[in-house]
Amino acid sequence: MRHLVSAGDLSRDQALLVLDTAREMAALQQREIKKLPTLRGRTVVNLFYEDSTRTRISFEAAAKRLSADVINFSAKGSSVSKGESLKDTALTLQAMGADAVVVRHSASGAAHRLAATGWVDGAIVNAGDGTHEHPTQALLDAYTMRERLGGDLAGRRVLIVGDVLHSRVARSNVLLLATLGAQVVLAAPPTLLPVGVEQWPCETTYDLDPQLAKADVVMALRVQRERMTEAFFPSAREYSRRYGLDAARAAVLQDGAIVMHPGPMNRGVEITAEVADSARSTIVEQVANGVSVRMAVLYLLLGGALQTGSDPRA
Amino acid sequence: MRHLVSAGDLSRDQALLVLDTAREMAALQQREIKKLPTLRGRTVVNLFYEDSTRTRISFEAAAKRLSADVINFSAKGSSVSKGESLKDTALTLQAMGADAVVVRHSASGAAHRLAATGWVDGAIVNAGDGTHEHPTQALLDAYTMRERLGGDLAGRRVLIVGDVLHSRVARSNVLLLATLGAQVVLAAPPTLLPVGVEQWPCETTYDLDPQLAKADVVMALRVQRERMTEAFFPSAREYSRRYGLDAARAAVLQDGAIVMHPGPMNRGVEITAEVADSARSTIVEQVANGVSVRMAVLYLLLGGALQTGSDPRA
Amino acid sequence: MRHLVSAGDLSRDQALLVLDTAREMAALQQREIKKLPTLRGRTVVNLFYEDSTRTRISFEAAAKRLSADVINFSAKGSSVSKGESLKDTALTLQAMGADAVVVRHSASGAAHRLAATGWVDGAIVNAGDGTHEHPTQALLDAYTMRERLGGDLAGRRVLIVGDVLHSRVARSNVLLLATLGAQVVLAAPPTLLPVGVEQWPCETTYDLDPQLAKADVVMALRVQRERMTEAFFPSAREYSRRYGLDAARAAVLQDGAIVMHPGPMNRGVEITAEVADSARSTIVEQVANGVSVRMAVLYLLLGGALQTGSDPRA
Repeated sequence: MRHLVSAGDLSRDQALLVLDTAREMAALQQREIKKLPTLRGRTVVNLFYEDSTRTRISFEAAAKRLSADVINFSAKGSSVSKGESLKDTALTLQAMGADAVVVRHSASGAAHRLAATGWVDGAIVNAGDGTHEHPTQALLDAYTMRERLGGDLAGRRVLIVGDVLHSRVARSNVLLLATLGAQVVLAAPPTLLPVGVEQWPCETTYDLDPQLAKADVVMALRVQRERMTEAFFPSAREYSRRYGLDAARAAVLQDGAIVMHPGPMNRGVEITAEVADSARSTIVEQVANGVSVRMAVLYLLLGGALQTGSDPRA
Repeated sequence: MRHLVSAGDLSRDQALLVLDTAREMAALQQREIKKLPTLRGRTVVNLFYEDSTRTRISFEAAAKRLSADVINFSAKGSSVSKGESLKDTALTLQAMGADAVVVRHSASGAAHRLAATGWVDGAIVNAGDGTHEHPTQALLDAYTMRERLGGDLAGRRVLIVGDVLHSRVARSNVLLLATLGAQVVLAAPPTLLPVGVEQWPCETTYDLDPQLAKADVVMALRVQRERMTEAFFPSAREYSRRYGLDAARAAVLQDGAIVMHPGPMNRGVEITAEVADSARSTIVEQVANGVSVRMAVLYLLLGGALQTGSDPRA
Repeated sequence: MRHLVSAGDLSRDQALLVLDTAREMAALQQREIKKLPTLRGRTVVNLFYEDSTRTRISFEAAAKRLSADVINFSAKGSSVSKGESLKDTALTLQAMGADAVVVRHSASGAAHRLAATGWVDGAIVNAGDGTHEHPTQALLDAYTMRERLGGDLAGRRVLIVGDVLHSRVARSNVLLLATLGAQVVLAAPPTLLPVGVEQWPCETTYDLDPQLAKADVVMALRVQRERMTEAFFPSAREYSRRYGLDAARAAVLQDGAIVMHPGPMNRGVEITAEVADSARSTIVEQVANGVSVRMAVLYLLLGGALQTGSDPRA
């Protein structure tokens, strides 16, 4: 595999290889081996058509710890605003010798298009395309679940709550978790479930509360307040009442069950501060794990080892 | 000391350690030893909620000369604009393993809050918080005075002129200079002096001219033209007449007295081009010294040596 | 030579030294020697008053492959927007120890002013000043022609088509190509030729078509659509009809003749997609060659070897 466009592209072995490699990366970091020489002389371009500082600096930190050069290409104020096409931008990055292009785009399918056309020889990593996918988020979520739940995710019950319709995080999680053998339930109002969700490898429900006691993981999705309109949902307040993770709902969870959120949170809407800051919450770990997972992805893609595995310390 | 939030936090010994270390840094730079390996593998994040290219690139240059990785986090166009709190941003930086966070914020107290809450394990360096403090500016100013005046600042008279009310530079300078034993006089119109200034360790006056002949240092503060309204002052022209540093005022100064400005200048308002470009002016040196001082601060904070001292070449 | 402000500053020997050094740089890159230690510890500042992501990242990639530290200084949101003068910005960069300043500015003459005043000790590289010059673009164009046409450009016919009036690319190309002995013809409507063009070392014509069969190179210039007004030209459609490079015009070209464009293209206006993507097109190579040429320029200027030559692998 040369690119990482969809969480669904990963076989079970490939997904486990990424997760195990990320664990090695984290272990090296904890032993204060902060800078690995692995990607010295390689160039990673962050091609961001949408603002996402958190994701951008996570990839930037990951690439720099592997000693790659990082070039940030924000489409704002670039030739793009003079009407340059994705193709011409891609050819530019190709010509400049980008070994990997981490792309964030508001259009679903942008990363796929870059990977499929061959405009760029380097590895394409999807850092979020429209409402479609965000595979490294799913990988860091799976990594976090494995660390917290103690290993294999087969048979674990993961409850994903909220605005599935607009969430690339939800889609990538469903695909990856199915590959890893977990059972996923989406709990959302009917207006916030996408058309065709019945073909996804998961269950769906409109009713959150009966699911809580059975879940190993509850993942709250970010709500875009501007979507809290009649078309999708009556109000943020009503949303919180029916789908918000608060202390009362957290109290129903099993011992050891964890609460996740991809960030940035709307405290008080999809999750209360009390739950977000509780011992069940993995929100801060998710961010830290993001760097390790992205190191693993860049390492495996640029080392060409995503099918065979190899020693990240080489 | 783990953080540098206020110039008032530094004891005399600590302040002198920073200044002496900065001198060593400058000496190494002049001997063409431009890149020190000291902070290799450490990550310095520039967390800038306000634009300040000069301060940002000064810290960036300092960190890179110590071989640190630098990640620039501009709050514009980040999750912050999606409503992310300072806390969540801090937890993100913490999770990403930031060893130092250089923070610039429009709110007075933001750096203190980051340092006091423990959200971040890394060192917090205040790069300007609202109208409150800008301690590395005070350090580079003190460094510049020592270089130009020949050492110890005890007993030296420093005249700070202009908009003290809105100036974090003035506040940090007063605190640090008092620690170093200098005598500070603030010369400003009554509307541009802050409430409570009578408790600061300095004198104040509304009348600049009688002070000039006694001063070793005259520091002009930047004037924000938008504040030149009835509420604060009648006009820029009137301000210049009463508080502007021009050739006539410079002529009154002692031999060897210096003229400073934190930049960027409004030439013709608080200082004339003639004075800014004269031999008395230290304005360009201040910028150069800023890099050395910030190297010293990062080196001492990240090396954990701000209380004990140590060899920057180690 | 300490600076590169105008393509006209280069003697024939200097121009050839840059082009030959760029070839060595490209050869090292192709042998997977991606990172040269040449400029370790040197600081290259990208001082961009105009947005130009492509040019900025080309210089950034070039500098990083030579192991320089790169600091990006975008004038947007900097002290410049608080009214800081070019002089004060330059003094700041000087004080910070910039070894090279790559400057892009909307004002013709900005780079010259920086180089002439001595405000900065470091090398000034003009990355585009108003409608005036863009010498590294001309160098990469000449490099591309030499690679494609097989060496010496003496006697080659280069046809530059379109909006010469607003094009710094055209001006720099004319100057450099004349130095290298090529024969340049400008084909443009009378409203898009600058005053004084009759003193440039080239021919001019309003009529593109009779020139095509004789040309070794046809270079389409970028059209700013906002200039397609009565004052300059009736419409984009009319422009395409008379000056656009389309399949019919490409069919008239000699075997081996090439088609160039500095990018970003308006596909369908000054060049059709069919021609831009044809085997004659060098558009992607131009971008790749840009990195090699900028490596050569930085290497020769900072190594002080632009007159004497030296081994880039030292």
